[in-house]
Amino acid sequence: MRFQALPGFRDFFPDDLGQRRWIESAWHRASKNAGFEEIDGPVLEALELFTAKSGPEIATQLYAFKDRGGREVALRPEMTPTLARMVGARGAGLPKPIKWYSVPEFYRYEKPQRGRLRAFYQWNVDVFGSDEPAADAEAIAVALDALRMLGLEPDDVVVRVNDRRFISRALRELDVTERDEAEVLGLVDKLERDRTASPRLDDRLGASRADAVRGLCAEYPLDRAPELGAVIDAAREFGVTTPLVPDFRIVRGLAYYTGPVWEIFDRGRELRSLAGGGRYDKLVGALGGPELSALGFGMGDAVLGELLAEKKLVPKTQPRVEVAVVAVTPELAGEARKIVARLRARGVAAETPYGAPKLAKALKAADAAGAARAVIVGPDEWKDGKVMVRDLVAGSDQVVRVSDL
Amino acid sequence: MRFQALPGFRDFFPDDLGQRRWIESAWHRASKNAGFEEIDGPVLEALELFTAKSGPEIATQLYAFKDRGGREVALRPEMTPTLARMVGARGAGLPKPIKWYSVPEFYRYEKPQRGRLRAFYQWNVDVFGSDEPAADAEAIAVALDALRMLGLEPDDVVVRVNDRRFISRALRELDVTERDEAEVLGLVDKLERDRTASPRLDDRLGASRADAVRGLCAEYPLDRAPELGAVIDAAREFGVTTPLVPDFRIVRGLAYYTGPVWEIFDRGRELRSLAGGGRYDKLVGALGGPELSALGFGMGDAVLGELLAEKKLVPKTQPRVEVAVVAVTPELAGEARKIVARLRARGVAAETPYGAPKLAKALKAADAAGAARAVIVGPDEWKDGKVMVRDLVAGSDQVVRVSDL
Repeated sequence: MRFQALPGFRDFFPDDLGQRRWIESAWHRASKNAGFEEIDGPVLEALELFTAKSGPEIATQLYAFKDRGGREVALRPEMTPTLARMVGARGAGLPKPIKWYSVPEFYRYEKPQRGRLRAFYQWNVDVFGSDEPAADAEAIAVALDALRMLGLEPDDVVVRVNDRRFISRALRELDVTERDEAEVLGLVDKLERDRTASPRLDDRLGASRADAVRGLCAEYPLDRAPELGAVIDAAREFGVTTPLVPDFRIVRGLAYYTGPVWEIFDRGRELRSLAGGGRYDKLVGALGGPELSALGFGMGDAVLGELLAEKKLVPKTQPRVEVAVVAVTPELAGEARKIVARLRARGVAAETPYGAPKLAKALKAADAAGAARAVIVGPDEWKDGKVMVRDLVAGSDQVVRVSDL
Repeated sequence: MRFQALPGFRDFFPDDLGQRRWIESAWHRASKNAGFEEIDGPVLEALELFTAKSGPEIATQLYAFKDRGGREVALRPEMTPTLARMVGARGAGLPKPIKWYSVPEFYRYEKPQRGRLRAFYQWNVDVFGSDEPAADAEAIAVALDALRMLGLEPDDVVVRVNDRRFISRALRELDVTERDEAEVLGLVDKLERDRTASPRLDDRLGASRADAVRGLCAEYPLDRAPELGAVIDAAREFGVTTPLVPDFRIVRGLAYYTGPVWEIFDRGRELRSLAGGGRYDKLVGALGGPELSALGFGMGDAVLGELLAEKKLVPKTQPRVEVAVVAVTPELAGEARKIVARLRARGVAAETPYGAPKLAKALKAADAAGAARAVIVGPDEWKDGKVMVRDLVAGSDQVVRVSDL
């Protein structure tokens, strides 16, 4: 073939799309179960919408270009700026809290690798207009509910939680100024993955203060973070039985988080995070929208797909049809089409060969399509207004009137 | 608000998306009912994939740019090139016919106007590997089946059909050469919309031959187009009761059609076409894929949405939740969350206020969310392990055990 998909982009053949739709279906059901309404925004937005939030450096990861009208535009790399724009346009007239979710595809020009593509689907769940810990807790519960619907056991994953307010207080007590906080958090964020982060923390804070930070990472003083305790309690009430583990290393790189932050990992910690979220009370206002407290999370399809495949939870592809109608002679092909039309009008997925293949070949095709039954239209039965119904699993036949089908 | 959606792009607020999902749901059901499997391809493809099919002039309508790796890429303006690429990659190993559908979004840099946006959703249904008229007929039947599912009556629309093979034969009989055919067809295509097309046809062919072409447009000689007659007959067998009107003016501009071509219009002919399709037997091979006969159609969401709105067929938005659980005192908010968790685990869409609003306010919010029932958790009943269930439509109350909910 002359052409291929671009690196990091995927063709979804029926089996691939079946898996994607299965995952999306859990996302939709978990969202709707909790009273979230679905929204969507444009795939293409003004470039400035994204740089306004994340600064110009994000542009190196964007699919950005000038359109034919001379506008600087970019494919969306995430949903939050679009959400802030939409809440800004309509939010004032809507009752609070606003509970929205979406299942968009995002585009990032990154090096493709395991669990990281240049185009991926992500479930986004957000709440606008509530300061209550129960709102943060519900978001965690909804994320876990979708994983349960996909067949994961509560113990297959773990939620690591933290709170940006406690982080700030703890760093202030260690005389880390507000101005230095982002830099220190950047190192804390890397402690797990990057061996140089710990010595760099020593360099930055001195051994004693760095030890204090490492101590917070080793044992979380939950008694000093009552906001986080309230979220954990409410999540338990919302039915969460998955471990909720306070962990000082979960800071969620982006600077805009203002409260609870959390990430879901597979229990074995072999994969990247399955989902991550937190509270971002200042962002909607900063993007030009109303001052509105907000929180949310994202869950991508790539890492999740790996975990589900590893646990052998991905279901088999659905059969293509339920019933195949087969004419024994070419003259009866039109009657077969009429029977197909009757079945479809009743919501039964049915088909008949377009041409006039031999019976054995047509039945083989019916089997390949996953049909449970074949309706065989043969001249002898047809004379009496009847057809043969073959159970393709059991192999048994039954002659029935067409009107009784 | 500082930012807006780009011209020709849409924000989908919950009501908007509800309508889109309702339309898509009919597309999915009609496809699956007829044994079509869903596929999807990348939003972004190599630019050359699109110019190879439609020539470099299509580039003026494309969102095309150079990516950070220096590749010339473009947002997909249609599905056929991607389909041809995917059939080329896997088609050889798949049983024929291949029956695929998709519900992609497309992007075209055109002047936004009524029923024409720069980003729109389109249902695509294609069959690869069948030369039978019944295959063309099934495509028409599937398109109409979706319209029926959306509440349109068979007579609300009309399918205008033609056949490129008959067109070629008829023009050859009028001594229009194969080389001139495209130009003449371009004028025939414009006869309805462009007053200058008829005099230009005179200029091009002379009055006598132009009259002959106009005669074909006035009365279709179906007896001279048996291929089209076979499609019409098979469509009737597939249950189509919508008028199928042979019309010489339906040529489907694009040069690649090779057999039956058709378009669906609203009966009053007030809107642009709702759907259009045809057979394109040479295209897959021309795009570098295997030689494989093919046919298909596309149905967009924009014109269809207008017709459905005009006919008042768009359903009301679904309620956000079925049950609202309300704690009468702040101390019982946690118990309300536990009840919500129990209901959700049973697949009931339920929620409870995040904070502790007064009962009247909470019930008002429950009503606004569309809840049919409120579960009221009050201290008196709670002592006995009971709650009050209020029917928010009838206004009646019932005290039940929590375990019986």
